[in-house]
Amino acid sequence: MRYAACLEYDGRGFCGFQAQPSGCSVQDALEHALAAIAGAPVRIAAAGRTDAGVHATAQLVHFDTEATRPDTAWVRGTNAHLPAGASVLWARAVAPDFHARFAARARRYTYLLLDRPTRPGLDAGRVGWYHRPLDVEAMAQAARCLVGTHDFSAFRAAECQAKTPVKTLLALDVRRVGALVRLDFHATAFLHHMVRNIVGALVYVGALRQPVQWVESLLAGRDRTRAAPTFAPDGLYFTGAEYDASSGLPATTRDIVLTA
Amino acid sequence: MRYAACLEYDGRGFCGFQAQPSGCSVQDALEHALAAIAGAPVRIAAAGRTDAGVHATAQLVHFDTEATRPDTAWVRGTNAHLPAGASVLWARAVAPDFHARFAARARRYTYLLLDRPTRPGLDAGRVGWYHRPLDVEAMAQAARCLVGTHDFSAFRAAECQAKTPVKTLLALDVRRVGALVRLDFHATAFLHHMVRNIVGALVYVGALRQPVQWVESLLAGRDRTRAAPTFAPDGLYFTGAEYDASSGLPATTRDIVLTA
Repeated sequence: MRYAACLEYDGRGFCGFQAQPSGCSVQDALEHALAAIAGAPVRIAAAGRTDAGVHATAQLVHFDTEATRPDTAWVRGTNAHLPAGASVLWARAVAPDFHARFAARARRYTYLLLDRPTRPGLDAGRVGWYHRPLDVEAMAQAARCLVGTHDFSAFRAAECQAKTPVKTLLALDVRRVGALVRLDFHATAFLHHMVRNIVGALVYVGALRQPVQWVESLLAGRDRTRAAPTFAPDGLYFTGAEYDASSGLPATTRDIVLTA
Repeated sequence: MRYAACLEYDGRGFCGFQAQPSGCSVQDALEHALAAIAGAPVRIAAAGRTDAGVHATAQLVHFDTEATRPDTAWVRGTNAHLPAGASVLWARAVAPDFHARFAARARRYTYLLLDRPTRPGLDAGRVGWYHRPLDVEAMAQAARCLVGTHDFSAFRAAECQAKTPVKTLLALDVRRVGALVRLDFHATAFLHHMVRNIVGALVYVGALRQPVQWVESLLAGRDRTRAAPTFAPDGLYFTGAEYDASSGLPATTRDIVLTA
């Protein structure tokens, strides 16, 4: 039987999503917890493999098991075996050909950037930070050229294993909410570090270190070495993947409720 | 010279506000950091001494020092010596008779309560949790009888050192914001555990374990042993103290921003 499950986590408690020999990842913790319920080893596949320090409001995974358990056992039982920083929100049997990663039609990320003179304390590790006032209007303007289907090599990490650097950014919304600048990304798929590299470039524009047009020339240049540094993982949240309605899943995306 | 400073912190990184021999408190960390800037020991007094696990968006302190430093040194210099979970937001010279605790005319707390079947993961340690749907309208109704000047003995911890259990609750606002129930408290002063004990009682009402009128009879009974258990510190935020405008301070309260 194949199951899908949705979980949220605070990235600070893990060394990233993907399994590690040391067992410190979200995948390690979740497979360990699911195995305790199944009474047998469980392997998961995920919609989006987040880096160390990156959070998720709705990470979707699937796994196969021969164990017959009520859905609540896969949720509450699993949570009893997970560390405090992660929680399964729901679990449900799915078609045997459903795939959390390959069936995802689009993905969403939100970046929260604290824009104030003093570094974050209450939200340390949960927001990025820039110490001077950012011109959010300029950032939003610069972001517009990124929407659409492009070769995003300029924002691609050297270690990126994607087959192609061409992705479709469906939307990129930049706005201020109090002392936070909030950036919402919606794309078919993302390259490794793509969100954090775009945030880095937009912050250069917002800080008036580069003109609005610079982002468009960066994109056209397809040269990562010309771009801005990768922004911190702290403010990055994977907010879910989208699937065909025919998958019959409960909500697979969860917007961020801001606490600033 | 006497200075006032405002700081925010994540209560999870500390064993409460008040100084401890082990040095694990917010006060210990702040006095240590200020001493590094002053080049001499510094003692602080605070507007509200929070318990272990309780957070602050705006804790006000004052301290005396003979060191002459620019305000930015008391802010950014101190932050360089504070652990990641705390940050000084501003510092400013004040009148020598200003007192962070005794000059406070009123204080504010917010309690965030996650109301959903599954335990918090992303916000573990940052929200309280109740697993069944709460009747927030009943909670708001029950809260009304608490507003005003009352003997709050029914909601007072055994260890409370306040001279009198009579306090004036200026406002208590209860409302739902998405999956969160938000409770905003505004009072001249609070007894030890008063907010968390009131939250515990209101949750009993919201869960329909007690009728709305029960809170009024609890208050009248002045007997802590009849009330509900103290709710978890996780969701509690000290959001600031209020001072006479003549003190000339920047903002001493900072509301929690929630957008669902």
